[in-house]
Amino acid sequence: MQTIELTNKPKIVGSYSIVGPKEGKGPFGKYFDYVMKNDRLDEKTYEKTECKMLELAITGAFQNAGLLISHINLLLAGDLLNQIISSSYAARAFNMPFLGLFGACSTMAESLAVGAVLINGKNFKNVVCATGSHFSTAERQFRFPLELGNQRVPTSQWTVTASGASVISLNGVGPEITQITFGKVIDLGITDVNNMGAAMAPSAADTMSAHFFETNTKPEDYDLIVTGDLGKLGAEILIDLMEAKGYKLGKNYSDCGHSFYTRNQDTMCGGSGCGASASVLNSYIIKKLKTKQYKKVLFMPTGALMSTTASQQGESIPGVCHAIVLEAGGN
Amino acid sequence: MQTIELTNKPKIVGSYSIVGPKEGKGPFGKYFDYVMKNDRLDEKTYEKTECKMLELAITGAFQNAGLLISHINLLLAGDLLNQIISSSYAARAFNMPFLGLFGACSTMAESLAVGAVLINGKNFKNVVCATGSHFSTAERQFRFPLELGNQRVPTSQWTVTASGASVISLNGVGPEITQITFGKVIDLGITDVNNMGAAMAPSAADTMSAHFFETNTKPEDYDLIVTGDLGKLGAEILIDLMEAKGYKLGKNYSDCGHSFYTRNQDTMCGGSGCGASASVLNSYIIKKLKTKQYKKVLFMPTGALMSTTASQQGESIPGVCHAIVLEAGGN
Repeated sequence: MQTIELTNKPKIVGSYSIVGPKEGKGPFGKYFDYVMKNDRLDEKTYEKTECKMLELAITGAFQNAGLLISHINLLLAGDLLNQIISSSYAARAFNMPFLGLFGACSTMAESLAVGAVLINGKNFKNVVCATGSHFSTAERQFRFPLELGNQRVPTSQWTVTASGASVISLNGVGPEITQITFGKVIDLGITDVNNMGAAMAPSAADTMSAHFFETNTKPEDYDLIVTGDLGKLGAEILIDLMEAKGYKLGKNYSDCGHSFYTRNQDTMCGGSGCGASASVLNSYIIKKLKTKQYKKVLFMPTGALMSTTASQQGESIPGVCHAIVLEAGGN
Repeated sequence: MQTIELTNKPKIVGSYSIVGPKEGKGPFGKYFDYVMKNDRLDEKTYEKTECKMLELAITGAFQNAGLLISHINLLLAGDLLNQIISSSYAARAFNMPFLGLFGACSTMAESLAVGAVLINGKNFKNVVCATGSHFSTAERQFRFPLELGNQRVPTSQWTVTASGASVISLNGVGPEITQITFGKVIDLGITDVNNMGAAMAPSAADTMSAHFFETNTKPEDYDLIVTGDLGKLGAEILIDLMEAKGYKLGKNYSDCGHSFYTRNQDTMCGGSGCGASASVLNSYIIKKLKTKQYKKVLFMPTGALMSTTASQQGESIPGVCHAIVLEAGGN
């Protein structure tokens, strides 16, 4: 069994999302808590900006929950940068214990999973889970210097400049985390670093089919099934893979990355990055759960676990995907 | 409160350690399960060697526990490499869910902490926790190409080539994990990347004093208090910092890194790396707990959370340290 039940129903009692100006112009723009005027936040480097965005998201989330910093027992965070410096350096600003996570773009699910387990086990009262990404830090770390102005290939995705944070508590009011399906690392041999969607789709299919099987549910049982950043192509591959496994994904399926930008924003296959699913969850999805427009959501961010070193050594790209069931709850 | 009690007492039912040839000649040499004949394991790159060492440690641990791969519900692992590729790529070899962690050299404690919480909460039956490091991958990622033959400064430490893994279960026989103190990220402004001990010692002091205070214990209550890889200088700084806080660390205190090599192995301040505390725990310490020579151990690996990018941007080095209480148990 990869799926666990959280019988004490940990609740998301606070959430916050912050995005860059380009992201603010996308379809989710009006749902985000804060749209930055430029992509710098007055910091000298993009890495420091990414770190500051995380600090703002974390602070925003516990303020949104009506809690003080002293009420939060633990911070769980991770990001895409080498040695997850955005998260580790952001953690310095908060006088609370810290667990650093790395699940690439699946990190929002991983932090919610570990955080919810701690709350469900009554180990802590309140924890905050966060992640984020920045176009300009990812671009220069994983791809090319921005100054080169490289042409983008049709399968590429645009790393979103966005950060999101959630506070999980045993008490309070908010959407409930009722089940978690922990994902396996799946690698079908994709080596094209400009085609992350294809590399990650098999892990999404693996976790999703395990989830449906173990919980005895089917796609129609959810108001929304949402993957993280498979993008246009990856989402299509996932639909095909699931159909081969006997599950038909319908209109209630979407992908945060694919939906993140409008067609005229020139992002090829859509958005990617930890911040994509984190900011959509902590704005649009949680708002819809709070107003009961969604009763049950299957939230499934995916991560591509490669590094430039691994790619240079000819390695393929493993993917991972964790699934979180969010329910609107009784009240 | 940073400390939690694990009332169901998760047990370490299996463990395994694998080290390089230099490490095999150190004081712990006879305790390790496997000493490699060379530092390559027939792999083409050191990164692939580090990955293979993790695979061997993980396999060794569940075999040592008398379990099959199908009995293990989850793998928790992390390492020092960018995007923790050793762990993520090792996870491909095992058909089980995976949580990637990043706590730098504190990772063995972080993986045990999260793993023990999952077992204590009866979410899973058996999980395996692992980490490792390799001298040659760390050297070229964080410092200089080996071919340069740079002279080492007196405060430097030698990244150990070692990997360790533990299986945690609710049932079975083995040392018990009874308490965990989750550490905060502490940064007192050290910017010298050749002095990791000084950068990490304040976080060890912070977690250790929180642990003593919250559990109402004192240094004499433990048969062994062991930090991860502070090295000679860092361990001395910790002793001073603790004395200033009113705690006198005696002969029962030691540091895995400081004790890892003999004086004539030319490692300056001693060993470092995730593998240091992981391999000492999963050999020497667990064996001493099993034979009841140790009844209660405070295991406190420390991590330095910087990256080369952060250092190049003038950032100081944050540290983190988590504390795990291991008890020999009743049987």
